[in-house]
Parts: sequence; C-alpha cells; structure tokens
Amino acid sequence: MSHARIRQIGSPTNSIVKVYRRALAKGTTREGWLAVEGPFLVKEALAAAPTVRTHSVLITESGSAKFSGLLEGLPAETEAVQVPDRLFEQLAQTQNPQGIAALVELPDYNLETILAGQNVLLLVACGLQDPGNLGTLMRSAAAFGASALCTLPETVSPFNPKTVRSSAGAIFHLPVLHDLSVHDLVYRLRADGVCMVAADRHSPSPLCQANLRGSVAIMVGREASGLQPEIAREATLCLSIPIRPGMDSVNAATAGSVFLYEAARQRGFKY
Amino acid sequence: MSHARIRQIGSPTNSIVKVYRRALAKGTTREGWLAVEGPFLVKEALAAAPTVRTHSVLITESGSAKFSGLLEGLPAETEAVQVPDRLFEQLAQTQNPQGIAALVELPDYNLETILAGQNVLLLVACGLQDPGNLGTLMRSAAAFGASALCTLPETVSPFNPKTVRSSAGAIFHLPVLHDLSVHDLVYRLRADGVCMVAADRHSPSPLCQANLRGSVAIMVGREASGLQPEIAREATLCLSIPIRPGMDSVNAATAGSVFLYEAARQRGFKY
Repeated sequence: MSHARIRQIGSPTNSIVKVYRRALAKGTTREGWLAVEGPFLVKEALAAAPTVRTHSVLITESGSAKFSGLLEGLPAETEAVQVPDRLFEQLAQTQNPQGIAALVELPDYNLETILAGQNVLLLVACGLQDPGNLGTLMRSAAAFGASALCTLPETVSPFNPKTVRSSAGAIFHLPVLHDLSVHDLVYRLRADGVCMVAADRHSPSPLCQANLRGSVAIMVGREASGLQPEIAREATLCLSIPIRPGMDSVNAATAGSVFLYEAARQRGFKY
Repeated sequence: MSHARIRQIGSPTNSIVKVYRRALAKGTTREGWLAVEGPFLVKEALAAAPTVRTHSVLITESGSAKFSGLLEGLPAETEAVQVPDRLFEQLAQTQNPQGIAALVELPDYNLETILAGQNVLLLVACGLQDPGNLGTLMRSAAAFGASALCTLPETVSPFNPKTVRSSAGAIFHLPVLHDLSVHDLVYRLRADGVCMVAADRHSPSPLCQANLRGSVAIMVGREASGLQPEIAREATLCLSIPIRPGMDSVNAATAGSVFLYEAARQRGFKY
C-alpha cells in the first residue's frame, strides 16, 4: 500500500485510539481480537495471513519511516492509522515502545475438527499462573508440532499481553482453545480415545518409557502445586521426568516442553 | 536455637542493615556472599548446609513468629537479626516481602576438580541476557544431574536476585563457575577431551542422533542471536533440536533444558 492510505489521528479521544488503549492494556478487544505491540509480533501476525487477519496497524510518525517496508506490504483489508509519537507512548504497555501495534483476529478453532486429525498432540494447561510460562509453552507446542493448546479454567489467559510476548509469535501458528470446561474436554478426549498424560512429578513412571506416538493430550498443572487431583484422576497415564534425587522439580514450562520434545522424538520429529 | 539469641536492631543505619540493603539490591555482598529473600530460598540454603554456609538470617518481628521453627533449627554459626517490619520492607526487593532474608556463602568451586569426574555434564551459558532464563536453566541443570554451570563474559550474573529466584534453590545444589574466560575454558575442555556441543538452531544434525553419554559441555547462546561465531567455531559438535518447519526456535532456557534432558536420557537418568 502507499503511505497516502494511512489515516492520521491526533486526538486521544478518537474512537480507534480508545479501542487500542483498552485492548493493549487488556490483551484483546471487545470482539476478541488480539492487540499486539512491537515490530516482531506485528510482522509475525502479518506473515500468518490469511489464517490470521490483521484488521489494523497503529503506527507513530517515526515508526512510519522506520517500518515503511512493512506498511507498503500491508494487505488491502488492513487499515493503517498514524498517531503522534507521544500519543502512542500513552497507549503502549511495553517499557520501550517501538511505535507499532496491531489488532489481529485469530481463527475460531474447534476441538472437534482438531481431534479429527491423526496422532493428535494436545497440550493442556491446567492452572498455570505465570504468563511467561504459558507463552514459553505455547512456543514449544508450536515448535514440537502440537495440534493445539487447550487451557482449563483458572489458567492465565493465552491472550494476556505477556503471554503473547513470551510466545514469540507462536500464538499465530498454534490453535488455542481457551477456558474449556474440564468435564467437556475430558469427555471429548475419552470419546476420541486420546491418551490423557498427566505430567506428575511424583509418578514413578518415567515419560520416556511410555508410548507417546498415538493421540496424546499432555496435561501440565500449576507452577507450585502441580495438577489438581480432580484433573489428575482423569488421566490415562501419570508420568514424570526422572530427575536427580533430592531435586524437587523443573520449571513448569520446562516440564511441559520436555514432554512435548519426548513425544516429538518418539514420533521421529515428523511434523 | 532459642529466640533469646536473636539480635534486635532498630536503626536503618546499623552496619548489618546497610550490608543487607546493598546485598539484597545487588545480589551479593562485598565478600561475594549471596543475599537471598523469602522463606523458600532461606530454607533451601539452610538445607544445603554444610556445603552452603548461612552466615546470618534477617527477620522481621512478625516473621519471627511465623518462621519460629526455622529460627529454632538455625546452626550455631548463623547469626539471627531481627528488625521492625517497616525497616525490612525498605530493604526488600520482592513485591510482597515475606519478612525473611539471609546472607549465604557458596563453596569456591574449581573447574579442575569438576573436570576430574567421570562423564562430566557441563552447561555453558554463553551470553544469555535474561535472569529468568539463566535461573530456569540452572534449575534444569541441577535436576538433570549436570556437574556444573559455567558462565562466559557478557552473560547475566548467576547471582542476580532474579536469577536466584528463578533457580528455585538450584543455585545451592549446583556448582556455578562465573565469568570464565572463553579461551581458558575452551583450552581446559579440549585438554580434558570434553565434547563441546553447541546448541545451534541452524545445524542440520539433530541432538538425539549424537552420543551425549561421555563428558559433554552444552553451550547455549544469547536469546535472540544464539551463539557468537567465535564460540561456535570452537565446538566439537553443532546440534539442533528438530522443530516444525516454519517455526524459528524455542525459548533459550527451554533449548538448554531439552539438551540436558536428552543427555540425561541417553545416560539412563543415572545421577
């Protein structure tokens, strides 16, 4: 697109400025579109088109010069809005705002469609609290070929701005099913014959001795307390990562990533 | 010990209060002792005696009641100092100070002694910037039976308070050799026949096809840019974690942890 198509806005009370203000703080708009900040995430969102739709890009005057290549390559459906640098700084949530943000619509994913695949690999976040951990796990899930990330209630939002930043763009490449009911998920997984694997540091069964080649859902619990008993008891298998005696555990995102790696390794890294 | 042995200090200009103020902000005292905050880390330090020496414990009035069991079990060499809650809050670096901190001396580790072991497993942090990542890696290294963590120049300090918190006490169980010279480390590893494995996302050789059973040093680079070329070219092997095409990488702490897991797996998790 040519720069002539950039809408100029100077007023902090303009409606699109208000939408960005709210969405950047909260992570999402009222429609459920994701607000992302910084050139890395905006580029990742644009690169994931047409699966991911970038509705608008908000850019500063100085950002327009710095990211002119990005602006020229914007698809026709994406509105470009330019605001003064000082106004952008008031909206930005990052410590060093880089003058670019976007509103992005992720596809509507459906558990049924995902479970229709062969040798499904699901990651189920069951109560993780730290957005950095969930984002790191999302990145590992996308890297190790997971079919989707499912989150259960009382888990930090996958759309939290810190989660999205830690995902390093993986959120645009991985189906995310947010805030599913435990009962519904367990019912569906059982009906579809998906092996529910609980990551349980107290289990005597090491993960590498289990067969993770079929359809598997890896369930990772809360950072300090692990899986809630009512979820753990639904598991087909409880497996642990064998660690040095006397050591308590590894980080929750590390644990989930090691389970995903082990599953990918057993599947011969065929993605 | 009995509570009678707790020294009471009320003045913010008292010398031990000054030492704690500086050390909690910086991570270490002038002698190189580690300052740790919160009951979890203080308990971990005390549990790692006599390898780790806890020189003093600083506690609030309300903390003395809450952690009376801990105070009663203090070794004779540990001085207990009580300060008013409000004074502690001025020193504390955590968001919700829990009224307890300690000054802890880690052993002086020596690379030569560590390399004298059989099937050594070293983790070498080469320029990692994020304290959370280094702490998470330290936790994984302790869990997967690493012999030591070595850090090269331009790496975040392993004694940074955020690193120590993310290590979840692993710093008390893992020898840490800080800020080694690249030249000296490479020379020693080569002389001792240690296989230097570069974690290199661009390598075509997958880590699981290499033999990681002998003496191995896993070298993990900077978050965004990976290993510096001058370090990577010293490597015996460059190995990658096979990830889904189109995905760029996993988190640096995740990558290092997966390498450590793979080494531990190949060694049959014999710690």
